[in-house]
Amino acid sequence: MINTHEIVSRILKHNNGKIDSVYFTACGGSLVDMYPSYFLMQSEEKKLSTGWYTANELVHVTPKKLSSSSIVFVCSHSGNTPESVQAAKIAQEKGAITIGLTFNKNADLLKYSDEKIIYEWGNEQEVVHNPMAIMMDMTSQILAKIENYDKLAEFADGFDKIDTIVANAIKQVQPRTKAYADKYSKEPMFYILGSGASFGHTYGFAICSLMEMQWMDAAPIHSGEYFHGPFEVTDKDKPYIVMESLGRTRELDERAIKFLNKYAKKVEIVDAKELGLDLIDSEVAEYFNPILFYAVLCEYRAKLAEKRDHSLDVRRYMGKVEY
Amino acid sequence: MINTHEIVSRILKHNNGKIDSVYFTACGGSLVDMYPSYFLMQSEEKKLSTGWYTANELVHVTPKKLSSSSIVFVCSHSGNTPESVQAAKIAQEKGAITIGLTFNKNADLLKYSDEKIIYEWGNEQEVVHNPMAIMMDMTSQILAKIENYDKLAEFADGFDKIDTIVANAIKQVQPRTKAYADKYSKEPMFYILGSGASFGHTYGFAICSLMEMQWMDAAPIHSGEYFHGPFEVTDKDKPYIVMESLGRTRELDERAIKFLNKYAKKVEIVDAKELGLDLIDSEVAEYFNPILFYAVLCEYRAKLAEKRDHSLDVRRYMGKVEY
Repeated sequence: MINTHEIVSRILKHNNGKIDSVYFTACGGSLVDMYPSYFLMQSEEKKLSTGWYTANELVHVTPKKLSSSSIVFVCSHSGNTPESVQAAKIAQEKGAITIGLTFNKNADLLKYSDEKIIYEWGNEQEVVHNPMAIMMDMTSQILAKIENYDKLAEFADGFDKIDTIVANAIKQVQPRTKAYADKYSKEPMFYILGSGASFGHTYGFAICSLMEMQWMDAAPIHSGEYFHGPFEVTDKDKPYIVMESLGRTRELDERAIKFLNKYAKKVEIVDAKELGLDLIDSEVAEYFNPILFYAVLCEYRAKLAEKRDHSLDVRRYMGKVEY
Repeated sequence: MINTHEIVSRILKHNNGKIDSVYFTACGGSLVDMYPSYFLMQSEEKKLSTGWYTANELVHVTPKKLSSSSIVFVCSHSGNTPESVQAAKIAQEKGAITIGLTFNKNADLLKYSDEKIIYEWGNEQEVVHNPMAIMMDMTSQILAKIENYDKLAEFADGFDKIDTIVANAIKQVQPRTKAYADKYSKEPMFYILGSGASFGHTYGFAICSLMEMQWMDAAPIHSGEYFHGPFEVTDKDKPYIVMESLGRTRELDERAIKFLNKYAKKVEIVDAKELGLDLIDSEVAEYFNPILFYAVLCEYRAKLAEKRDHSLDVRRYMGKVEY
């Protein structure tokens, strides 16, 4: 595994140790993977501040606060996403220290990355090597060093356990994901609900798994926002997938589920607790929701792909036409 | 008009003038109205930090940074949205100074509001009395006082001009909004695109105008994210509405429009420049996009409502059933 302790210790020497902000910027799926770290920062920061930006918005509206006192995480799976490469370049020009994460050791992104992290990918059994886990690990350490965040032992314990939890959950959901695809593969549109650290993957399942990989229509809804507009479309014909998180925002998800169980018929609940996430210390378990949900929702999308005979790898525009 | 200068001057005396953060929290449409102020803060803050939260998430995951050094804006049109009232209560308990904005002078929200702002509503010809404009006016003043933001004259000039721009735009779009409703009233689902300060209303048009008020399916997409997943569903049958902003993120919208014009057929562009927003100084015009878009998109939704014979005021769940 990558020695994040050494990297974090180098990062925190930047600008003579004067750090006031931590930014996360990427596009699409990589941006989604940053959300749990951003959420953790938002919850725990005291002196620091944070921001989470789609790369091209950061490029065009660079926050004035982004400076030599900033840490900027940039992630691009291919490593050559032009907007992300440009965001890293701008961050460096502003004097920030940049951490580039990519699967590609020859990535353009690495040219503008003060710290270079080449992560592993594709091994669902070892999720701790994935960028989502690496960034969260580093973020918790940054918080420990700067804000005296004292849950690193619980985080380490969580990282020890998460692979087993994910592996068990994947086995556990095989019948239900198959049944889901059989039942819902022809639906015209899906609403995806979630909250807390999981909201990034609520958005991500809609835009990456359904829209990009299955060309299916979808919309993400924050469980807390559901009752303030979105619930008016609810009826027995609309399919909903709800990520029921463990942790402080579980109540928000439960409230939406209670309503959906009354007024909708096509409701799929993915419950982190039922899938074993409560093995992790309750002080930090909520930050691990998205790692579990990502793995489990990958099973849902795989079964949909199979049933629909629509490979997860086929694209009509991405990387094929000019844009 | 409300004397925001007096209010801001009082706010900035809170905690002996030691302020390190400005939070915006509300639900649904009121949360949407806070987005331009949040975006302005994100762009211009240097020492301060900011956050934008659906109220129930702030209630359950109260940021550690929210303290006596914080300013917290809370907005609720009815003034009695339980989550928003609770958020204001918690913010006060943490020692923050709370600014409550509501249309209801007997609102519960006001019990937990150190500064009480009863705004006007319903007069589309005087948008400066609406909460979106009031909060942006106050945010620009806070930035001026704390961060030496030097565009207050341009902002004042913008507020002087925006009512006329909006009035003209509303007249200008009458034929096209009518034609839009005639053509698209039976579509099953809409994608709404936008960026920058307008992204709140991109989301808002989807969840409030279409989902809540018309029971129509919709999904918001950030123009900068469009190419990183969402564009794969694009085809000639899918309807898109793009808010083409004036300002630094216009390039992001233009890129999406260029692509849509090539691969989609049902594309409606709402262009702030064509609608006269460039009357406002280019240093601040981008923050006025959402005021213009809100007013113009209200015309789109009104024509859809008329054509579909579905009143904007009818609800099946909100305020009617338990939730």
